[in-house]
Amino acid sequence: MKNFPKSFFVNGMHCGISKKKNKKDLGVIISEIPCIASGVFTKSLTKAAPVLISQKNIKSKNIKAVLVNSGCANACTGNRGLNDAKKSVDMFAENLSCKSNEILLASTGVIGSFLPMKNMESGINEISFDTVNFNDKNIKNFTEAIMTTDTFPKVSSRSFKLDGKKINIWGTCKGAGMIHPNMATMLAFILTDIKIKKKLLDKALKNIVQATFNAISVDGDTSTNDSVFVLANSSSGNNILKSENKNYKIFYENLLYVMRDLAKMIVKDGEGATKFISIKIKNCKTKSDAYKIGKTIATSPLVKTAFFGGDPNWGRIVAAAGRSGVKFNPDKIKLYFNNIKIFENGIGIEKNYKIFEKEFQKKESEIILDINQGKEEGTTYTCDLSYDYVKINGSYMT
Amino acid sequence: MKNFPKSFFVNGMHCGISKKKNKKDLGVIISEIPCIASGVFTKSLTKAAPVLISQKNIKSKNIKAVLVNSGCANACTGNRGLNDAKKSVDMFAENLSCKSNEILLASTGVIGSFLPMKNMESGINEISFDTVNFNDKNIKNFTEAIMTTDTFPKVSSRSFKLDGKKINIWGTCKGAGMIHPNMATMLAFILTDIKIKKKLLDKALKNIVQATFNAISVDGDTSTNDSVFVLANSSSGNNILKSENKNYKIFYENLLYVMRDLAKMIVKDGEGATKFISIKIKNCKTKSDAYKIGKTIATSPLVKTAFFGGDPNWGRIVAAAGRSGVKFNPDKIKLYFNNIKIFENGIGIEKNYKIFEKEFQKKESEIILDINQGKEEGTTYTCDLSYDYVKINGSYMT
Repeated sequence: MKNFPKSFFVNGMHCGISKKKNKKDLGVIISEIPCIASGVFTKSLTKAAPVLISQKNIKSKNIKAVLVNSGCANACTGNRGLNDAKKSVDMFAENLSCKSNEILLASTGVIGSFLPMKNMESGINEISFDTVNFNDKNIKNFTEAIMTTDTFPKVSSRSFKLDGKKINIWGTCKGAGMIHPNMATMLAFILTDIKIKKKLLDKALKNIVQATFNAISVDGDTSTNDSVFVLANSSSGNNILKSENKNYKIFYENLLYVMRDLAKMIVKDGEGATKFISIKIKNCKTKSDAYKIGKTIATSPLVKTAFFGGDPNWGRIVAAAGRSGVKFNPDKIKLYFNNIKIFENGIGIEKNYKIFEKEFQKKESEIILDINQGKEEGTTYTCDLSYDYVKINGSYMT
Repeated sequence: MKNFPKSFFVNGMHCGISKKKNKKDLGVIISEIPCIASGVFTKSLTKAAPVLISQKNIKSKNIKAVLVNSGCANACTGNRGLNDAKKSVDMFAENLSCKSNEILLASTGVIGSFLPMKNMESGINEISFDTVNFNDKNIKNFTEAIMTTDTFPKVSSRSFKLDGKKINIWGTCKGAGMIHPNMATMLAFILTDIKIKKKLLDKALKNIVQATFNAISVDGDTSTNDSVFVLANSSSGNNILKSENKNYKIFYENLLYVMRDLAKMIVKDGEGATKFISIKIKNCKTKSDAYKIGKTIATSPLVKTAFFGGDPNWGRIVAAAGRSGVKFNPDKIKLYFNNIKIFENGIGIEKNYKIFEKEFQKKESEIILDINQGKEEGTTYTCDLSYDYVKINGSYMT
């Protein structure tokens, strides 16, 4: 598999957590060489049990593996849920002859139901020993095992050279916020064979996640299980990255590429989505202002339904910006749609309405809103709100 | 008309602002006796021209009348929009032989288009002189003139006695947040013949609006034109209310009743709504916490689509509370649905699931979430998210 980092093994199988027959529901990542790992997790107070465990274990500089299941979020499951999660980790660690705190854990699926521990146990035993036979099919198995109602596996990768050594970054993710019926979670796993200090990897992830996974919105709902992991096992043999030098910047750009690619895939696979919209807010005082305005537009049901219906209504975009909580002068902002100027000096530009109406029907569009009070910018990605979103999440027909 | 306050006259007519033939689109409120008035307005930065004018004029203690139109929001219309609004007020003031700053102004309708000033002028001239012939039909005309895609006129009223004098409160409103296709605005007009100090009326309105119009959500979109007006013309002859005494409390409770009644009507007329849900968050540290949690639940597309589809998914309610930004211990909260306990000690109460599933299908429901960390509470009102919301706001079929 192209760009797959050295000394990592992944696999996926069906063990019976999901109610769908043959739906793969258990996945593992194993590294031959101990990793450092960085993670960002949901800020929700109702964090799922696997999140609580991974938040602790990720401090280890000796991460050996990741265990992940779909079909059950193990969220809102109290002490029993936490014990189930611990038992799963213990079983997996025993099979790998490592410590429990060297394992990361993630779950996605129905909130409020318990893990079927018998199935987990037999699944963990089976997969622990099957995974070292590495091949492309195993990668496919893993990307399928983390899916819930995703319609396609989401994978992105890059490779580049540092110190004459080839560095690989490979990532996969599932879901989109908490858009799925009964399903909790966006999960992302990014593997790399780069050698890097943990602090530096933490910093890179923290920055990049703002412009990627934190900059997408399907429905504004944050999950109980959201987790993004980056594992680096140092097997590429580059000189260790320990400062923000030129090599770090090359790595950063490549990691950004993979994470942005994955984040966009989530929006494109957004439930019921028929359109993809990127919203660039520029010339703000701060980056945080840019994302605040962008997210208000991205989560506005009025903007999203307008896109679905192809109803070219720029007023809804300006109005959403106006209620975002960021202070600006509405008479000084400019709104562009696919590079057509549509609003300036406080009023719409009527001569451009015809072409705007045509552009508004496109499958992919870009909104640019120039706030005209600074130099910072940020781009948020979203999709439209369709009948199918309501249908799927209302379980109306199922 | 029952409970209609003395010395107020209202009327409505079609003058051609709305594109629909015969749709009443111009309304007036005239008081024989000068009023004091209190108002709360949208906090959006992209405030419509009529909002800017009313915010200024409402300081006058000599309010004579209100001019309101539907069919055009006069928002995002720059200087031309502001001049149009001023001209309208000037014309109306001249007809009434009063000052321009004694008139309040409100608009609702399409954002970004300009007022047809010829129609406005002939309309204002006609209605200024027709209105003093007071009858019940005129009241109906007014409540219809402020409607956009509302499916019914929204009216509530109360009367009670103070100092042996009958006091009347009558109110009407339109819309729901900014839920309407191309339409901006929630507008509310409340008339009373009580005699009260302006400062005290301001305080009552400011408090009550938090628990009524600010506690409803159809889609989370705030309009450019939202305005709530209370006009008091003192014609009932009670001793003037100037402190928060027993009489003030009687008035307060009655005003609260009317405003809550109107606010609930907006949710029930929410676009595409098939269900009405009240969300009481209790035992919080502060009222503001209670509304923050309540609004996060009320605006969650996942919660709202679950209600539409009748998919009994309590996990979405707990998860929405968890991401609200208010800190609490998820293991100590309790969730009730129509008085059935459904979540406690961090887990769902399985023995109650069957009856919960039945209750979840009802047209009107109450969620109670006990946060268990204080004594404050607040109730938010919302509706479900249906196919019709998407249809109407996507203008898909129109």
